[in-house]
Amino acid sequence: MEAMAVPFTREDYRHRMQRAAEDAAAEGLDGLLVTPGPDLLWLTGYQPTAITERLTLLVLRGDADPELLVPRLERPDVESAAGAEALAISDWRDGSDPYESAAALLREEGAYAVSDSAWAMHLLGLQRRLPKSGYWSVTDRLPMLRAVKDANELARMESAAEAADATFREIVKVAFAGRKETDVAADLARLLHEFGHEQVDFTVVGSGPNGANPHHEAGDRTILAGDMVVLDFGGLMQGYGSDTSRTVCVGEPTSQMREVHDIVRTAQQTAFEAVRPGIACQEVDRTARRVITEAGYGDHFVHRTGHGIGMTTHEPPYMVEGEVRPTVPGMCFSIEPGIYLAGQFGVRIEDIVTVTEDGGRRLNNTDRRLVIVE
Amino acid sequence: MEAMAVPFTREDYRHRMQRAAEDAAAEGLDGLLVTPGPDLLWLTGYQPTAITERLTLLVLRGDADPELLVPRLERPDVESAAGAEALAISDWRDGSDPYESAAALLREEGAYAVSDSAWAMHLLGLQRRLPKSGYWSVTDRLPMLRAVKDANELARMESAAEAADATFREIVKVAFAGRKETDVAADLARLLHEFGHEQVDFTVVGSGPNGANPHHEAGDRTILAGDMVVLDFGGLMQGYGSDTSRTVCVGEPTSQMREVHDIVRTAQQTAFEAVRPGIACQEVDRTARRVITEAGYGDHFVHRTGHGIGMTTHEPPYMVEGEVRPTVPGMCFSIEPGIYLAGQFGVRIEDIVTVTEDGGRRLNNTDRRLVIVE
Repeated sequence: MEAMAVPFTREDYRHRMQRAAEDAAAEGLDGLLVTPGPDLLWLTGYQPTAITERLTLLVLRGDADPELLVPRLERPDVESAAGAEALAISDWRDGSDPYESAAALLREEGAYAVSDSAWAMHLLGLQRRLPKSGYWSVTDRLPMLRAVKDANELARMESAAEAADATFREIVKVAFAGRKETDVAADLARLLHEFGHEQVDFTVVGSGPNGANPHHEAGDRTILAGDMVVLDFGGLMQGYGSDTSRTVCVGEPTSQMREVHDIVRTAQQTAFEAVRPGIACQEVDRTARRVITEAGYGDHFVHRTGHGIGMTTHEPPYMVEGEVRPTVPGMCFSIEPGIYLAGQFGVRIEDIVTVTEDGGRRLNNTDRRLVIVE
Repeated sequence: MEAMAVPFTREDYRHRMQRAAEDAAAEGLDGLLVTPGPDLLWLTGYQPTAITERLTLLVLRGDADPELLVPRLERPDVESAAGAEALAISDWRDGSDPYESAAALLREEGAYAVSDSAWAMHLLGLQRRLPKSGYWSVTDRLPMLRAVKDANELARMESAAEAADATFREIVKVAFAGRKETDVAADLARLLHEFGHEQVDFTVVGSGPNGANPHHEAGDRTILAGDMVVLDFGGLMQGYGSDTSRTVCVGEPTSQMREVHDIVRTAQQTAFEAVRPGIACQEVDRTARRVITEAGYGDHFVHRTGHGIGMTTHEPPYMVEGEVRPTVPGMCFSIEPGIYLAGQFGVRIEDIVTVTEDGGRRLNNTDRRLVIVE
């Protein structure tokens, strides 16, 4: 539906690695250690075919060029990555100690940020080899690493959101009553692919009481007339994530369903209106929670209000009590309050929002009022 | 093609957790900490829909019942897992500190093994909260955790291997010359699914010079008459892995191709014949390597000889120099020597082998001689 985004260039990767090294230095760290996953893909364009027990480690330091240590037999793959020319590449061979090779790139008493999802086995290997070194997670010390999107990234986020919106506009036309949740979930996956997603990560269809479990995916339950149905779906398009939720009703809702849906919609709207550069992330959570609590449903809003999104569908910044870091223009995150009534139904409404100089801008723009389906 | 294996029972999970706790105690550890992934699935039957930044942690101790800490909103999913009744379940709520909740289950100065693929972020959270505690990877301290398969697991391994063999017997009938590597790879994936795999993990088709990169998957190259083609494919069937490699020739091989293939076949056969209970894993590697080195190609065998396989396609034990732990009946691992001639071609021959009281038994049994395809 959208033109392909412009490919990221070697200069993009060089700039990202340089900024990350500078940010680490400004944070008082000796560097940033990155293993395969979204951080490595964002920084270098390199993604191994599988994340395995063999150590691959990017070392970014303020005082040296970026260096990527890889298993020798994966070296040809690395050399063809988009950011490879901005990197020095070294390798280790099966049967040798990869942590010995990694230690040669690190300081004995260095302080490093490390990718959240780096394997504990690898971190322990570095800690054993360099017992005086110290480590912190990226989320703890450099949570802004991928949080602020540039124009090329925002274009991809917008395309992904538009595809998710197109999916919602189609899904409300399909039959709900009499079909299983998994049937509707399959429709969602098909539509996301049709509208351009290369990867579908989740297709939640929570009908009736299943909607009261915020983590329910989709099951064998047959959807009935009168059910509220939570729909929450997304994935990756051109490498960037979508994630939107709407709650629909199969036929006529009860007055309680309308009331709960109105409260969630108001909470979502109020939290959205609170977004502006410089507020603490927890303010977004507090704002949504206040609306729901004042309406008497505070105990039924059992999760944080939102999460960052980019090359993964969950990443910093988190809109959660205790997250005092400020929002910054270019950040993208979900605002997704919900109310869950055990044994009855759930309601969740979710948009991806980006922070602008003036406030917030929604990337998802389908109707947030209660839609009736058949 | 095979009857479904018997489902694992609550008693299976209870037994596995008990044995793991006992093994940890025997190793001088206070316990074993397990995050989502193959260890958790094997121990409890529980697999969250996604592995995320939210901490899920199984704590196994010799002196207490198993306890699983989960995010509150994932609790309903856990409670429906096969092993849930053998567990105490506790939860933490968004906005609270999950490491505080985890620490309540651990000793201040405890020594723990932790899943290899646990997120570094979670390990760091525990280390900060309990600075006097100590951690080691499962591969480092409890590599036998899932290494020895019981009869029910071996039945699944055999089914997966038979499906991979059936795939090889069909793939040699398809056209190679004039088609792209990715076309043959798609055939491999289709066949693995048809023969019962629920997941395809890799379909390597390395033709001509691409075969000389042992980590090449499949690319746009059009396969030509005269090419050697490395085929290496596998995935999961009933939750257990397959992984086999054969190298075929498109039409008539050169004498060098025949010679190199014969050397690899002899190395694979010799290493297989070396397998018996109690030898060091590195002996399998040394045996294969000796054959290839004596034939003059030692510098071209650039990877270890094999890896364990079970619920993942790479896991301990590794058949690599330095791995002095002994083989034990019920272990399953690959024997996959190769020779890689840059710019020309590669040869790899791989079977999954299980250790029996008498020696080794191959689970893959297709022809290891050089097969000519069209």
